[in-house]
Amino acid sequence: MRVKGKSYRTVWTENSSVFLIEQNLLPFEFQIFEAKTYKDTCFAIKTMIVRGAGAIGAAAGFAMAQAVMEADDDNFLEFISKAKIEIEATRPTAQNLFMATNRVYEAALISKEKALIEAQYIADKDAEDSRKIGEFGNEIIKSNWKIATHCNAGWLAFVDNGTALSPIYYAHNSGKNIFVWVDETRPRSQGARLTAWELYNENVPHKIIPDNATAYLMSLGMIDMMIVGADRIAANGDTANKIGTLEKAIAAKEFGIPFYIAAPTSTIDLKCKSGKEIPIEERSQDEILYQKGITDAGKIEKILVASPKSEAFNPAFDVTPAKFITGIITEKGIVKPRNEEIEKICKSL
Amino acid sequence: MRVKGKSYRTVWTENSSVFLIEQNLLPFEFQIFEAKTYKDTCFAIKTMIVRGAGAIGAAAGFAMAQAVMEADDDNFLEFISKAKIEIEATRPTAQNLFMATNRVYEAALISKEKALIEAQYIADKDAEDSRKIGEFGNEIIKSNWKIATHCNAGWLAFVDNGTALSPIYYAHNSGKNIFVWVDETRPRSQGARLTAWELYNENVPHKIIPDNATAYLMSLGMIDMMIVGADRIAANGDTANKIGTLEKAIAAKEFGIPFYIAAPTSTIDLKCKSGKEIPIEERSQDEILYQKGITDAGKIEKILVASPKSEAFNPAFDVTPAKFITGIITEKGIVKPRNEEIEKICKSL
Repeated sequence: MRVKGKSYRTVWTENSSVFLIEQNLLPFEFQIFEAKTYKDTCFAIKTMIVRGAGAIGAAAGFAMAQAVMEADDDNFLEFISKAKIEIEATRPTAQNLFMATNRVYEAALISKEKALIEAQYIADKDAEDSRKIGEFGNEIIKSNWKIATHCNAGWLAFVDNGTALSPIYYAHNSGKNIFVWVDETRPRSQGARLTAWELYNENVPHKIIPDNATAYLMSLGMIDMMIVGADRIAANGDTANKIGTLEKAIAAKEFGIPFYIAAPTSTIDLKCKSGKEIPIEERSQDEILYQKGITDAGKIEKILVASPKSEAFNPAFDVTPAKFITGIITEKGIVKPRNEEIEKICKSL
Repeated sequence: MRVKGKSYRTVWTENSSVFLIEQNLLPFEFQIFEAKTYKDTCFAIKTMIVRGAGAIGAAAGFAMAQAVMEADDDNFLEFISKAKIEIEATRPTAQNLFMATNRVYEAALISKEKALIEAQYIADKDAEDSRKIGEFGNEIIKSNWKIATHCNAGWLAFVDNGTALSPIYYAHNSGKNIFVWVDETRPRSQGARLTAWELYNENVPHKIIPDNATAYLMSLGMIDMMIVGADRIAANGDTANKIGTLEKAIAAKEFGIPFYIAAPTSTIDLKCKSGKEIPIEERSQDEILYQKGITDAGKIEKILVASPKSEAFNPAFDVTPAKFITGIITEKGIVKPRNEEIEKICKSL
């Protein structure tokens, strides 16, 4: 996708380095981080220079490939096994990360070259899945629609295009006149910071709204469709995603507004029967009590924005039951959130 | 209510001065502002040293009484008429303000003493209404309940006790074991800043949550009841209140959780047939894009918290249809949000 008119992926390689967009500085500064060794790439994953399921997976695959290239022939297996553990420890709850390290590791057992090819394949497959999600999603978007999204399931979270935002980019680029409502997505404000930044760079008309405003805009007929991403989808279609997704989905159903999940089939966990089995991460209360931003003088500051003596509760995700979801947009097509359809699409080629 | 153990009203008089809690500095600093003249009190209303329907009404009544005392006998009528216009211009959309200036002005036409009595009566009546709302509301709160609220309809918005928080204070003080979920209430964060500060000072157990978390907590059975305030209630029970109220009310209905409005009958506008007739104020986008808070060094800073080139849309209120409201807690009792019941309670003594 474009930044100041130039095309980028979120993570890519040149020679033996991995390059990543420094997402901690966004939306205030745009910088590229060069990871010369697999340890540098581990650092980038750990410190959230790179974030988002797909982008973390690609970065982890590249890190594993870097380790393979850095290993001597003498203690090859020992070196890459240790490196694998190190890479996997960077973000231990990121499912895509383990998929990537395992696949590149296994390829390395055949040859170093196979490992490199596999790492590149993982990144390309992620970008390709996003592209197909964009094409399928675009088919159900009508011109003049106002589309709401939540959090950032854009290209910054993947290698390119993203999931929830990919249909929006395809609709916009195909000449449809669309407008996007971007909710802030407190507490980490990925909507106001990342999604708004992406849409600005792609010239997609949009405005930021407080998380509190979505149902009200729906009640006024100002939202025609909502698309969000997913962290995990259960076999019955129940979907874990950023906190607030449930509230938006309930409101969408109340006002008869189509509510779509966009995610590659790799996000579907058939072993997980329903949303009740998905564990929800609780994060630090400081994400709510403090806010980071930039002063008029251009300095990044962290400020306390709540009553100093009060505590906060910060569940990072919620689970939206399938009954509130209109459909799931995958790289293999759009399915209803029902066991049979989900199982069928997972097993199709 | 108490601050650091000492009892305060939001606004009160001593001799010819009006004293107000400086709400712009809360929750970071607690200071009292002394308004020696009616012009000082106008300044306090205009700069939001005092805010909230009831508190603004009381302050405006006191300002009018100050003007009456400051007026010479020669040009008495001219002076107080000019002052009235000046006071009413401070917050031209605050309905209670006009009620207060009119009543004190009319009393002043009889005598200066009547004007003083009327101003004090307005403040006392506001506190008394809140007290009764607390008593009626307390009757429907059970021990061990977890109660959610939105925005700040606490004592800071009135003269004492508040509306939505008054039943909570009465329940807590009557020995019931209750817990309060305080949502942030973006964009101005009155929940995280003011409601949390009030509850801390009254020792009511509570935690702050992001606005996005309410429906999720409801889905887990972690909320037994929700109580919010109101800016205006139509004859059919449709209620305008802080943006986000609608979204919470829809979620409450979905999960079968009682959702109450707490407000004095003076908030009911019988001339307004339904919520469709209530105009919604749109406020500056900067309230969303920027956040004010305090640095570790104790300095109050304003920072940009969103993508720098994006715009925001900031509707300040929304309208919750009566069908999502379980009941309205007034100073005269609790009514269902139905035309007949609302009209009857408005006309009863």
